[in-house]
Amino acid sequence: MIYIVFAHPYPSQSRANRTLLDAVRSLPGVEVCSLYDRYPDFDIDVTSEQAALGRARLIVWMHPIFWYSVPGLLKHWFDKVLTYGWAFGDGGSALHGKDCLWVATTGGSVETYSATGIHQRSFADFTRPVEETAVFCGMNWQSPCILHGANEIDKPALAAHALQLRRRLEVWLAIHGEGASEKAGHAP
Amino acid sequence: MIYIVFAHPYPSQSRANRTLLDAVRSLPGVEVCSLYDRYPDFDIDVTSEQAALGRARLIVWMHPIFWYSVPGLLKHWFDKVLTYGWAFGDGGSALHGKDCLWVATTGGSVETYSATGIHQRSFADFTRPVEETAVFCGMNWQSPCILHGANEIDKPALAAHALQLRRRLEVWLAIHGEGASEKAGHAP
Repeated sequence: MIYIVFAHPYPSQSRANRTLLDAVRSLPGVEVCSLYDRYPDFDIDVTSEQAALGRARLIVWMHPIFWYSVPGLLKHWFDKVLTYGWAFGDGGSALHGKDCLWVATTGGSVETYSATGIHQRSFADFTRPVEETAVFCGMNWQSPCILHGANEIDKPALAAHALQLRRRLEVWLAIHGEGASEKAGHAP
Repeated sequence: MIYIVFAHPYPSQSRANRTLLDAVRSLPGVEVCSLYDRYPDFDIDVTSEQAALGRARLIVWMHPIFWYSVPGLLKHWFDKVLTYGWAFGDGGSALHGKDCLWVATTGGSVETYSATGIHQRSFADFTRPVEETAVFCGMNWQSPCILHGANEIDKPALAAHALQLRRRLEVWLAIHGEGASEKAGHAP
């Protein structure tokens, strides 16, 4: 199973992230949790989230970049769901060996993320906290799928990027199969 | 005025952060907002927060490090309070020229933040998103005050670190004065 944690604060106003989600949500074995829809009061159901992660073989974090990081509710989800003794630490092996794919969009173009750009650094300089969160939980960090310039991108280019993401998940499914979750054996 | 945004999810269970806060909260011209006490439902009063920031000349973010970053509610505070047209973008100069000090604690020792440590990288590799958030808003990023090994530190060492922080704010106050906010002229 592929578990997509979708974190757009205003899903109905999203263009880029909504297009990406729509491109992959119909794939077999995909389960989506739209965080801001499901937990508008930030009261995350930790048991339910951990159960979904336990069933998953691939975990996708999909969201727009806010302040060089994940949106607040996804950060809160990290804090609440990835617990000691479950995701890390003594006996915390629930996520070991699962794959983790980061699908993110930035409003700014790739040029804004450079020494001479408005953000002063390459985008890679901002990614360590998210990457290490996955790695510390024993997950296999996949090469991230980052779309820059999401505010300005035209429809055909956005559709092409979304199709690329879909193809990537299709390949993953072809290798691992829809029933990959049952084979993983890492669920708690 | 010094505005301390204190983000510990369980303030009553905090040892290190509570000690740091107690060491500085009585200084003249200090205003404290304990985020998780004030906004347990994550429903941040943006107008009130922006007004406090407008009055401040030094803004302090004080919290334990969770997942290589700020706790979820402080990230949500970034997302909600640092708005376009106010903190950045067209006409967004409310925070320009203010000082920003990051006061953070990590459970892991400084050795855990190295190529051979459990976190695989130096702590500095994880700090860019928070630093650039301040810089993008036009704030003067101060050298951060980071306490490593907060879970294990003994009482005298913690007290010494807290005193060092107090001295640092005292020096800042001596230079800028308690009424610094009125001189800044950056309030919206």
